[in-house]
Amino acid sequence: MFIEKVKSEGLAHLSWVVGDGIEAAVIDPRRDCAIYVEIAADNGARITHIFETHRNEDLVSGAAALSRLTGSPVHHGPNPGGTVRYADTVREGRTFHFGDLTINVLETPGHTDDSLSFAVYDQTFGERAVGVFTGDALFIGDVGRTDFYPERANEVAGLLYDSLQKLLTLGDQAILWPAHGAGSVCGSGMASREFSTLGYERLTNPMLRIIDRKAFIEHKVAEHHYQPPYFREMERLNLEGAHMQEPLLPLPVIEPDALFKSQNGGAVVVDIRSIEAWCAAHVPKSLSIPVKMIPAFAGWFLSPNEAVSLVAAHAADAERAKRHLSRIGFDQVTGYLSGLDGWVTEGRDFESLPMIHADTVRDRLEKDKGDWQLLDVRDAHEVQERGFEQALDIYVGELPAHLDDVPRDRALTVMCGSGQRATVAASVLRRAGFDRVDVFLGSMSAWQATQ
Amino acid sequence: MFIEKVKSEGLAHLSWVVGDGIEAAVIDPRRDCAIYVEIAADNGARITHIFETHRNEDLVSGAAALSRLTGSPVHHGPNPGGTVRYADTVREGRTFHFGDLTINVLETPGHTDDSLSFAVYDQTFGERAVGVFTGDALFIGDVGRTDFYPERANEVAGLLYDSLQKLLTLGDQAILWPAHGAGSVCGSGMASREFSTLGYERLTNPMLRIIDRKAFIEHKVAEHHYQPPYFREMERLNLEGAHMQEPLLPLPVIEPDALFKSQNGGAVVVDIRSIEAWCAAHVPKSLSIPVKMIPAFAGWFLSPNEAVSLVAAHAADAERAKRHLSRIGFDQVTGYLSGLDGWVTEGRDFESLPMIHADTVRDRLEKDKGDWQLLDVRDAHEVQERGFEQALDIYVGELPAHLDDVPRDRALTVMCGSGQRATVAASVLRRAGFDRVDVFLGSMSAWQATQ
Amino acid sequence: MFIEKVKSEGLAHLSWVVGDGIEAAVIDPRRDCAIYVEIAADNGARITHIFETHRNEDLVSGAAALSRLTGSPVHHGPNPGGTVRYADTVREGRTFHFGDLTINVLETPGHTDDSLSFAVYDQTFGERAVGVFTGDALFIGDVGRTDFYPERANEVAGLLYDSLQKLLTLGDQAILWPAHGAGSVCGSGMASREFSTLGYERLTNPMLRIIDRKAFIEHKVAEHHYQPPYFREMERLNLEGAHMQEPLLPLPVIEPDALFKSQNGGAVVVDIRSIEAWCAAHVPKSLSIPVKMIPAFAGWFLSPNEAVSLVAAHAADAERAKRHLSRIGFDQVTGYLSGLDGWVTEGRDFESLPMIHADTVRDRLEKDKGDWQLLDVRDAHEVQERGFEQALDIYVGELPAHLDDVPRDRALTVMCGSGQRATVAASVLRRAGFDRVDVFLGSMSAWQATQ
Amino acid sequence: MFIEKVKSEGLAHLSWVVGDGIEAAVIDPRRDCAIYVEIAADNGARITHIFETHRNEDLVSGAAALSRLTGSPVHHGPNPGGTVRYADTVREGRTFHFGDLTINVLETPGHTDDSLSFAVYDQTFGERAVGVFTGDALFIGDVGRTDFYPERANEVAGLLYDSLQKLLTLGDQAILWPAHGAGSVCGSGMASREFSTLGYERLTNPMLRIIDRKAFIEHKVAEHHYQPPYFREMERLNLEGAHMQEPLLPLPVIEPDALFKSQNGGAVVVDIRSIEAWCAAHVPKSLSIPVKMIPAFAGWFLSPNEAVSLVAAHAADAERAKRHLSRIGFDQVTGYLSGLDGWVTEGRDFESLPMIHADTVRDRLEKDKGDWQLLDVRDAHEVQERGFEQALDIYVGELPAHLDDVPRDRALTVMCGSGQRATVAASVLRRAGFDRVDVFLGSMSAWQATQ
Repeated sequence: MFIEKVKSEGLAHLSWVVGDGIEAAVIDPRRDCAIYVEIAADNGARITHIFETHRNEDLVSGAAALSRLTGSPVHHGPNPGGTVRYADTVREGRTFHFGDLTINVLETPGHTDDSLSFAVYDQTFGERAVGVFTGDALFIGDVGRTDFYPERANEVAGLLYDSLQKLLTLGDQAILWPAHGAGSVCGSGMASREFSTLGYERLTNPMLRIIDRKAFIEHKVAEHHYQPPYFREMERLNLEGAHMQEPLLPLPVIEPDALFKSQNGGAVVVDIRSIEAWCAAHVPKSLSIPVKMIPAFAGWFLSPNEAVSLVAAHAADAERAKRHLSRIGFDQVTGYLSGLDGWVTEGRDFESLPMIHADTVRDRLEKDKGDWQLLDVRDAHEVQERGFEQALDIYVGELPAHLDDVPRDRALTVMCGSGQRATVAASVLRRAGFDRVDVFLGSMSAWQATQ
Repeated sequence: MFIEKVKSEGLAHLSWVVGDGIEAAVIDPRRDCAIYVEIAADNGARITHIFETHRNEDLVSGAAALSRLTGSPVHHGPNPGGTVRYADTVREGRTFHFGDLTINVLETPGHTDDSLSFAVYDQTFGERAVGVFTGDALFIGDVGRTDFYPERANEVAGLLYDSLQKLLTLGDQAILWPAHGAGSVCGSGMASREFSTLGYERLTNPMLRIIDRKAFIEHKVAEHHYQPPYFREMERLNLEGAHMQEPLLPLPVIEPDALFKSQNGGAVVVDIRSIEAWCAAHVPKSLSIPVKMIPAFAGWFLSPNEAVSLVAAHAADAERAKRHLSRIGFDQVTGYLSGLDGWVTEGRDFESLPMIHADTVRDRLEKDKGDWQLLDVRDAHEVQERGFEQALDIYVGELPAHLDDVPRDRALTVMCGSGQRATVAASVLRRAGFDRVDVFLGSMSAWQATQ
Repeated sequence: MFIEKVKSEGLAHLSWVVGDGIEAAVIDPRRDCAIYVEIAADNGARITHIFETHRNEDLVSGAAALSRLTGSPVHHGPNPGGTVRYADTVREGRTFHFGDLTINVLETPGHTDDSLSFAVYDQTFGERAVGVFTGDALFIGDVGRTDFYPERANEVAGLLYDSLQKLLTLGDQAILWPAHGAGSVCGSGMASREFSTLGYERLTNPMLRIIDRKAFIEHKVAEHHYQPPYFREMERLNLEGAHMQEPLLPLPVIEPDALFKSQNGGAVVVDIRSIEAWCAAHVPKSLSIPVKMIPAFAGWFLSPNEAVSLVAAHAADAERAKRHLSRIGFDQVTGYLSGLDGWVTEGRDFESLPMIHADTVRDRLEKDKGDWQLLDVRDAHEVQERGFEQALDIYVGELPAHLDDVPRDRALTVMCGSGQRATVAASVLRRAGFDRVDVFLGSMSAWQATQ
Repeated sequence: MFIEKVKSEGLAHLSWVVGDGIEAAVIDPRRDCAIYVEIAADNGARITHIFETHRNEDLVSGAAALSRLTGSPVHHGPNPGGTVRYADTVREGRTFHFGDLTINVLETPGHTDDSLSFAVYDQTFGERAVGVFTGDALFIGDVGRTDFYPERANEVAGLLYDSLQKLLTLGDQAILWPAHGAGSVCGSGMASREFSTLGYERLTNPMLRIIDRKAFIEHKVAEHHYQPPYFREMERLNLEGAHMQEPLLPLPVIEPDALFKSQNGGAVVVDIRSIEAWCAAHVPKSLSIPVKMIPAFAGWFLSPNEAVSLVAAHAADAERAKRHLSRIGFDQVTGYLSGLDGWVTEGRDFESLPMIHADTVRDRLEKDKGDWQLLDVRDAHEVQERGFEQALDIYVGELPAHLDDVPRDRALTVMCGSGQRATVAASVLRRAGFDRVDVFLGSMSAWQATQ
């Protein structure tokens, strides 16, 4: 009997391969799904079943592609919102066998209506669950968000409460295998630790320690979560079933001239180099999204089917960005400019943006005469914890939709927690024609450290 | 916070790297220990502590070597049998911190006097253990063997009982991380599954379901375990601390003539090819131990410091065998003959041994007139479950010490569960001058399947 | 400017990636062609051209597949025998540029009518060729075979002579990059060394040292070459263009029962384990072709579209065999039995075959009374060098077509150079119902070594 | 017979493994030498001989270390400058055999007194050399520099001429295997192509086309080459024999505070991130040497035994930098700061430096009033081809020794070919207290492109 975790960095998405003997199941596969086949083979097994804990809204499901690749059926929960075309519907009580391993289906709605959990049993040792795949119902240190049906806010929060009670009846001994880890937008307050049990969560998870159903509902309804616009597209795709993304062709290098033409032809240039590199010199109108931030932030700034050209420090970074983009449904990456050397040695225009220190910001705040504006792009939760009175607060992801709220007649200094999101925001502002922009490097962390 | 498992196949030895932030600990490192450094680095950490759950008797500890490599201290339990030179002694209640992760020491004697367990806490989430390293005290599906102090049999079984009760007080929610998995000689009846919790074990582990202390002791005292002779040497080495074994030089290929001379000079030739290959043709007097069987069986047939020359089908197999041998303290491997081609094309002598079918054995059993003997080399437990009245029963490992019990005037057919150990035994017999030997291929499994 | 060699073991097929700047060409790609894309990318280039030196008859060309993958055109020589569907026709004098690198086309017929060579120039350094891709016209130590048009034997040998003279005019300084190395059936007497120059060949290649055109033709016409039956199929496929073979799915393990049914359903069981393993015990009617011999020998014994089930010692061997088979056009591999353990522990029938020593053969030769036959399966060239008067000589590849020449009323001992091909032949005989067969292990080599 | 090339990027150092049967030789091993053992093993051979073409001055030889690892002798030419402790001395005419491969020693002094070349013969094919290892005597497109004995300038240039004539007598057919490729400071004008023959060089190499001995000497004596100060140390080390550098421990991450203390304690902080990242924000007083430039430039700015702390974007870059530094004898790397995030979020001081466009430089040149200075840090050869009248010319490597020539009362714009070396130079200037420095991004290339 084996279980292996596959983690997609950035999205903090966790998928699982579990099996016994020569048969194995995959839970919540991602789109680049050859890895599951390899893991199964390394364990002497082949994939015979694919399970989805729910219809994902934050990433492209790989269930349809893996099903086509392996010939295995996909099992999905009952979905009132539409038929999942590539799956059959399973309900509470269904049982699947893999050698001595048994999987029992539990319906655990709340995060979504179609949420399932899958309890795992070892027939050699008997009747108690050894673990459970909880999808987005129960995380380590948090529970799933319930903001997808605003008009049914109380109802679905209550459904989740009931689902969690149902899960807890499996017993303290059951190991917890959720669909997301820390860093996912599908929860907050998740532990960085990726191992826990129902017992440990029962004792320590703040949301499970709210015993009262009503108090739980109130807490959930009051939560604030962000929804990047690409979520809509994910919902559509994950009903239809996306094709696989296991390209044999590496992303092509493109020459400066090709980048220039591509940009003029409407492609968005995404610069995935470090924020420092972008600030020192960048292709005019390029968007700064360092490669590590692609999974969590690219979805806020790109439109479906928009062509994307990258500026990357290395081929490996470009490949990673392409893969990250593919996982959230953006497949139109045309190629990458390999560093800025070629661009600048051809004498092409480049732009720069200063990075400033906490002392400078402090100085400006003191001397502020209305010709300068501090723009804080952290999320509501962070601002609430500690914000600036003088700052204008717009979350980085929502900046494109709120450009009218940014004063065009003032110099702007953008800040966040460290300077990363601030640079992304600065690049959005520059694209939108804001001329006098700089970035508070170190941002709130540096501010507090220098107090 | 991260935890990663390192498994040594064959010995089914499990070691662990656990850490948070930039510091990490290794529990029960094996001798080829560079892997722990890599795992720590992959997680952005460096090794700062090494823990041993007890003095291993079945393998060479890598704690001393890893300590030298990393400069980290080794922490070992109080050992009445002698000072562990490379370690300091820790006792119940000591606490170690790695970022938010805390490790608490528990004394859990029984398997050995110096046995420790290490409970793991996540300070962000509080006072309950999230998991525990149990060494050879508690396995998944079994508990540690207690036969190392025969004169104190009842006492140490009682100690283990008490240690297990202590472990259970950590709570059902704690994940279990033992030092061995299924296949180890350190226990029997272990689950093939390598994930469990204290709660799951409390409910399903047959030994934990014996509630009565006295009954537990009786059960343990009645158990039968084998002890390969190399265990003695391990005890000595693991007090002193073995040097690292991370060779930069691959094992050299040796030519037939060099093998011949090496064998004449006293080296034992170990043929690690498949049993079928060995039976078809092999170097006279060579010992058959297929590469997968090296960890569990080589220790029965080799003497410390004995030179070993291999016959291997591939370089990779030879390297694996060398690594396996090194893990149990046999470092004198001179090289390998790459397949038998070179040997036979030089016209050198080779020997063969027939493999026979269940039908042939059945036939012989029926017509047996005393000139033929079936030799069953399975272990006592297997023979007890189902043996042959007409068979002579000698466990394969104990065959070298019981050659006098084997009749020299009869043809011999050797059997085991499948034919693997039977071939090892047949090679021992051939080395000892028994002429008329064949192997029952399929052995007990085939016997039962053809009934 | 870079050049990299891709070698397909067994077939000893050499293909090449050559490029400068961001453009690269592939010469004679094999069917599993993703490797060329990777090599180009590692050198910062992308593939823009594919060249074929001639229509291969011994392997499946990957040109069509690579063309589809990369969008690059395929350039092939003028082919009187039929249109190469996936290629355009290039003729002497065509020039292609890749940065500073220039490729000039030379028509060099003889081996085939459509044979081209491609001379390489470095424009920075000028007018002399730095090297040349010679396909099957000129090898290191030999020249191409000219037996494919028996009715035009003298003509094509003469054509090759002229082509070689044309090549030599490029100058002694030119490096030689042929399409095959030692071990290929496309030539004999090739050097094991895979580096040479036109100058070195002019001075040392026995065929280039035949100055007289007529003497050259006489020599070529007198040569004897073997043609496995699958060559026909290759000719057809390589006009049409085979699809790519880069499977994402590993070859499945099959259980003994599935193998049994597959064999009964008409699949041929190919045992790719070592000859020793096969002789000790094998599935009745299985063909013995050790994995390393698959490329050179499988084509003699399999029919197009025949289903093949493997018996393999390791998954890696099974994958290698599958890949080898795919390269010569056999794609119907259903799966593999992982070792014989499962088969024999189920008590299924197995068969064995003795391996005998030179002394035994010597003894039999002396005492031969007509009830025993030595069968020598080496090729005509080897037999000519040193044969046995008493032996029956049938080349291993031609054995299936000459079974009627093998006496059914005698015990058979099969020999070759070492025992490998003898075992393959023995398995063919056993499949054909010959009962009393054994293998002379060591064969001619052992015979000579023991004289 | 096999030959494999091992290339050390940056230094463009080429070393070679050549062998036949089970024996192999290494020519000019580098310090991280386990790779040669692996290559030999992959070819079924073991290393039995190590050859040095000469005492390297630009990198640490790995001959001593590889000799200790493998037990193989090192063969070096007669060295009047001192005894090479780890080697024996071989002279013209010595012959070594590896299977069918023969190596003949030729004395080819000029670049150094101890220079040897090694001609390679294939005994199967006879008396002509198939190739030759030429060390630093003959490169592809250039010949060795002869400036190491300034007082014997004419003599050694003449010696090299004679050596080259000797090499050419091997014949046009011989393949050329030199010790350096394009990018090495050991020659200029080398081809980017790493394959050639004596014939091709005879016809195309500009230095071999100088037929007259006296003209050759005049040309060589007039050449200008740079000598980084670490060359001295290499000479000493390569007489004594450096120890191996195959670390099992990865380079540790260091925290900002540790970097700060390390710098205060005298360590030089080398920032190996891109020049853009350094310009946007960097640790005050840090030296900018992007990781790719470490091999060729670090030796100009570091002192032997100086402690070095890195700032790196990735662990992989830090490891590469450490390896590069080790190859030129700098082993005191204490660790690396992983990006600048930690530094800036702690609110620590950072500095920036503007990158400016060709248009800005053009503008300044026009309006120059003596308060601004353009500093060109390209090498003498480049400046000679095209320089700026108004620029101050100091080669980047020699800047530390010529700081007094740089005006402290003017703003400085640093330029080179592209901006890379300019940024290195700018960091040297900032360390030396020059306050008003910026970098001409794109430099001469951009200048010419925008004309």
